[in-house]
Amino acid sequence: MSESEPIERLVGLLAKLPGLGRRSARRAVLRMLMHPEATMLPLAEALREAAEAVRPCAVCGNLDTRSPCAICRDPRRERGVICVVEGVADLWALERAQVHRGLYHVLGGTLSALGGVGPEDLAIRSLVARVAEGGGVEEVILALPATVDGATTAHYLTDRLRPSGVRITRLAQGVPIGGALDVLDDGTLAAAVKARRPA
Amino acid sequence: MSESEPIERLVGLLAKLPGLGRRSARRAVLRMLMHPEATMLPLAEALREAAEAVRPCAVCGNLDTRSPCAICRDPRRERGVICVVEGVADLWALERAQVHRGLYHVLGGTLSALGGVGPEDLAIRSLVARVAEGGGVEEVILALPATVDGATTAHYLTDRLRPSGVRITRLAQGVPIGGALDVLDDGTLAAAVKARRPA
Repeated sequence: MSESEPIERLVGLLAKLPGLGRRSARRAVLRMLMHPEATMLPLAEALREAAEAVRPCAVCGNLDTRSPCAICRDPRRERGVICVVEGVADLWALERAQVHRGLYHVLGGTLSALGGVGPEDLAIRSLVARVAEGGGVEEVILALPATVDGATTAHYLTDRLRPSGVRITRLAQGVPIGGALDVLDDGTLAAAVKARRPA
Repeated sequence: MSESEPIERLVGLLAKLPGLGRRSARRAVLRMLMHPEATMLPLAEALREAAEAVRPCAVCGNLDTRSPCAICRDPRRERGVICVVEGVADLWALERAQVHRGLYHVLGGTLSALGGVGPEDLAIRSLVARVAEGGGVEEVILALPATVDGATTAHYLTDRLRPSGVRITRLAQGVPIGGALDVLDDGTLAAAVKARRPA
């Protein structure tokens, strides 16, 4: 190999990122090495800053530099509506579509018998507590993926939340079967939020 | 936007890399934020190290932590054969294929009337000097892309090097027309080097 050791190490680390293989990682490194000060040092600094500053929000599980996160602290958000999502990518997708003005709750996954994911592996206890707390939560929107695991999780959450008397809705059937939320276009997401129906 | 500022900045920088758009950059950042210490800090360190340590070899233009580079310093390489390539990616491709045991010379591009790239923009003067120096260079292999600009550059180099009396060869016609060297499979590269013919 003619690739020197620091280059080899950098290519190896970049190639581990989703969406980049070794060939694209090599191309990216060569491109950056044409202007290392202007490209590599800012990226290194941004990585270090994100690694040090970004943490999960203790309330909703969103990622931000402060906890509670900017959404939980925002006085203009409707505090009576909590939108439950599988992951932070789905939260970002809904925010980009600007269709939800309430708060969020990130589960950190969906229930999966095959994957060995049980209720205690997800942020379900904290969701039930938020709803039971009496903070004026009126509606919980289950914005979960239209997969078997997503539907299982929605049923489980409906059962757990029903005693609280809160209104439970889920996204309309505009979400394509088998599709992930974070690859949907904004219009479809908006339609699905608007047409949400009782669970 | 719910993405906090450090995340936003990191996504923006990653999205500039060739092969990554904003969506894949976001996915990569979320994946890394699941284990920031194990993924982001090593990558930040590797970027910083590469930016600080890697430089072009003063002899051949290869990228390495030392100048002259490991290939130029290697006593086992045939010093009488110089392989001329357009860029470092092509040098890496030839090294991976293990078909060339001599030295290299990285031009840093090809002549291009449309792109406004003239002989003085490429490492041509230093190549002519290396050959004229009397260091025992017996053959120059022109391993340039099979494009119009590659062929133009090969002709120009042949004219410039002919007075030295050095043997000038180019890769056999196994290289696909319009193809870039660094995406070829090793077998095709090996065949093309073996069947090289006088220019």
